[in-house]
Amino acid sequence: MRNIAIIDIGSNSIKLVLAEIKKNNSFRIIDELKETVRLGEGMEKDNKLQEGRIKVAIQTLKMFKNLCDATETKEIIAVATAAVRKADNQEEFLNRVKKEVELDVQVLSGEEEGYYDYWGVVNSIDRDNGLIMDIGGGSIELIWMKDRRIKECISLSFGSLDLTQQFNLYDSITSEQEEQLLNFLTKSFNEVNWLKDIDCDSLIGVGGTIRNIAKIDQRNNDYPLDLLHYYQMNEATVDSIYKLVKDKDLKERKKISGLSKKRADIFIGAAAAVTTLMSFCNLEELLISGKGIREGLIYNYLYEDKEPTSNVLDFSINNIINNLNLNKKHAEHIYKLSKKLYQELNPLFKLDENQFEGDVDKILKTATMLHDIGKSINYYDHHEHSFYMILNSGINGLSHRELLISAYISASHRHDKYDLRKYNLNRSQFSDVIDKKGDDKEIIRKFGILVEIAESLDRNLNALIEDIDCYLENDKFVIKTISKEDVELEINDALSASKGFEKLYDKELQIL
Amino acid sequence: MRNIAIIDIGSNSIKLVLAEIKKNNSFRIIDELKETVRLGEGMEKDNKLQEGRIKVAIQTLKMFKNLCDATETKEIIAVATAAVRKADNQEEFLNRVKKEVELDVQVLSGEEEGYYDYWGVVNSIDRDNGLIMDIGGGSIELIWMKDRRIKECISLSFGSLDLTQQFNLYDSITSEQEEQLLNFLTKSFNEVNWLKDIDCDSLIGVGGTIRNIAKIDQRNNDYPLDLLHYYQMNEATVDSIYKLVKDKDLKERKKISGLSKKRADIFIGAAAAVTTLMSFCNLEELLISGKGIREGLIYNYLYEDKEPTSNVLDFSINNIINNLNLNKKHAEHIYKLSKKLYQELNPLFKLDENQFEGDVDKILKTATMLHDIGKSINYYDHHEHSFYMILNSGINGLSHRELLISAYISASHRHDKYDLRKYNLNRSQFSDVIDKKGDDKEIIRKFGILVEIAESLDRNLNALIEDIDCYLENDKFVIKTISKEDVELEINDALSASKGFEKLYDKELQIL
Repeated sequence: MRNIAIIDIGSNSIKLVLAEIKKNNSFRIIDELKETVRLGEGMEKDNKLQEGRIKVAIQTLKMFKNLCDATETKEIIAVATAAVRKADNQEEFLNRVKKEVELDVQVLSGEEEGYYDYWGVVNSIDRDNGLIMDIGGGSIELIWMKDRRIKECISLSFGSLDLTQQFNLYDSITSEQEEQLLNFLTKSFNEVNWLKDIDCDSLIGVGGTIRNIAKIDQRNNDYPLDLLHYYQMNEATVDSIYKLVKDKDLKERKKISGLSKKRADIFIGAAAAVTTLMSFCNLEELLISGKGIREGLIYNYLYEDKEPTSNVLDFSINNIINNLNLNKKHAEHIYKLSKKLYQELNPLFKLDENQFEGDVDKILKTATMLHDIGKSINYYDHHEHSFYMILNSGINGLSHRELLISAYISASHRHDKYDLRKYNLNRSQFSDVIDKKGDDKEIIRKFGILVEIAESLDRNLNALIEDIDCYLENDKFVIKTISKEDVELEINDALSASKGFEKLYDKELQIL
Repeated sequence: MRNIAIIDIGSNSIKLVLAEIKKNNSFRIIDELKETVRLGEGMEKDNKLQEGRIKVAIQTLKMFKNLCDATETKEIIAVATAAVRKADNQEEFLNRVKKEVELDVQVLSGEEEGYYDYWGVVNSIDRDNGLIMDIGGGSIELIWMKDRRIKECISLSFGSLDLTQQFNLYDSITSEQEEQLLNFLTKSFNEVNWLKDIDCDSLIGVGGTIRNIAKIDQRNNDYPLDLLHYYQMNEATVDSIYKLVKDKDLKERKKISGLSKKRADIFIGAAAAVTTLMSFCNLEELLISGKGIREGLIYNYLYEDKEPTSNVLDFSINNIINNLNLNKKHAEHIYKLSKKLYQELNPLFKLDENQFEGDVDKILKTATMLHDIGKSINYYDHHEHSFYMILNSGINGLSHRELLISAYISASHRHDKYDLRKYNLNRSQFSDVIDKKGDDKEIIRKFGILVEIAESLDRNLNALIEDIDCYLENDKFVIKTISKEDVELEINDALSASKGFEKLYDKELQIL
């Protein structure tokens, strides 16, 4: 177990991420610090980092270094992006940081920045194709991901700070200013010749500004989940949020729920860039990636072969299992048994008929592999804590809807089940995400009881029941246990689900 | 790190508790199994454990043993209570268990059982005095705890199973049956001469039956917290629950929300015992202890000096910090700084005027020592996860109200605070526990902002600001930081709380 620190010196803010690395390349973020230093501010004058900004940057880096010392973090990867990249006094800055903070900073080229953005995205979002956009203070990276590889990548030399300065967007803007801004953006995108060839549907957005667009939308809709990564918005919504902000002056913008006060003054240009790009490339969806350059640097550090993970969800689940020291053997057994049960009962789920949205295998895998995750909080009522933790552990590779359904199924793994009405989690709170058609609840219950049965069959965590055969037979569903030992108690325990099973499947449950 | 298993062979059920023991005597429960074996059933015939029951018991113990093997648990402490204690064929049973399961079982005397109950209670409930009552299937233990020591202890030779058999209470009961039952109970209590001398106010209830009384009450009232340990009920409520159950037949009883179906047939006699004892000893309050003999055995195993813990809350907080590997140094620093701030601002809290119920130091200690506990779930939004985890981690030594207030304060430790309205956690959900008088919210906010300021002052987790001096001066509250280094960034960060501070305290915040 050791720590690494990523320090990201941007034009707008300087950030520190501290990660703990465990065996098998698993990791978790243990701390994060951010200072809005605005290192790129004032550079338009002489293309130099300004002395006042440099001083704050060095002060900030000292504080970060201090945190690294306090947490015995010896490996520090420090990178600088657009502001330092563009500055004429880059060398002076780097020397001062080296001397005063004892820190070596690597200046990333625009393409390298794009590469790490891509690394953050491809290892945390389960999509094969998309246009990745990272809006920073001093640059915009565009990466066309095709079949999980970089097809094209460019770094535009303006970011939210530049747009704000160039078109004077700090406070309210006139329609003339807006026109100039939009023309500039369209012209810039036009100059990227491959943008015309984009054939995917999604813009995958990275960076604080884009996360802010999502936050505003979530607040607008009282979105019930506290998750930004993997949040989905359509083009019209993104455009409406741009329109909402550009018609307000700074004071009014600061009152917009979800918009960071520290970002309100540099937000308009960036929001315009997103909506303009979506319309320019005909992209239907904005998918938020909470992971970007910093996570990309971590993944890049971890994966020696520099190949993106072959399965985002599997990596994420394994990561959590390792971090929390969960019983993987038992988890895998519950997954195997539940899946067998589901495969035989599949016709009774009527998923097609109910137009069920979501990847069933991903859902079942998440629900079963992490069904005991709640034990990390407290053994007692751990099914309820599993519900909370599945929702909040930052699992990658699932849509919010899939995640929520997994959490509900997982919470049903004990006889003392999670009441769907509990804490109003049912209709009122999550109605945006599940139950739109009213059938999700039944499907959750149908899956839940299978996991409950599987859990009974592996009560002693030891795969005493090695496997099962099962089949539908007239009015019965028969489970034949395969074991070398006497498993009467396991079977009896599993049979306490029979009443519920019969209700849900209209079949008698028989376990032999 | 090693595991120990506690196996508790009772008259009604057999239970296994698996605990993981870490350095510094910290531990956590990692698994639990329970089978309702009813080993004591049928004993009234010939005072022998019945063959059918013995078989199920041995089968159960084999399964438990299997779980111990699967989890590499080498130390197993197996004890048997009333049924085995009383049985004429005790030796035969013990020999068979030894031969067939390879398990040595220690038969506890009634006094030993009472001792371990007391150990479970005294180390998990922060009370000096109380009458502890443990109702088992085959015995009732009464322990008078005075100044945290056992003053008197007795084991009555009847339990819920015996009462049910002797007075035929399985289904509905007549008023004649009830009279006989109550007379028997009063006579039995009368024979315990020291019960007349009891001078405490609380009955501290241990065991499944008493927990069931609490569960029924919680369901009746839609109690918003999922906590039984430390749940408080008054005598009239306990009596009303007894009246509710005794007027129903078995079928109707099984429908009572909160009452375990597996316990519904043996519940009346036990409920009568509780209410009769409370009235007999003039006890005003029933305080539920979720910890009893099994936890007592664990504590007894851990504490070599056999002295009860001197501070239940401290032990519990340390236990959690060790289990989750939290940063104790930083946590203690936040506690220290917050406490200093509170001590100076104390007059402005108007706690007396608001008739604030609760131990302020306990609350502040819990909120600060565990403010980062949510990082175990996810660094992002960890203040929200801290809220959840403080409520659900099984912290001992606080009332539910104190616990909830601690959770809210802890959730306020970051600038991006926990919205009190979030998830309806505000009035609607927790109105039974806080906000009865409407002032709790303001007090929570007042504490919360102090923890937020302390957190800013120790941003780099390294106690760079070693200490503070603070004082009220006219319209100002001045904090003087004591540090050898430049702490401008820490001060600036702390000052971002000034607006909120001024609103709450009507004082300008100055930090030097």
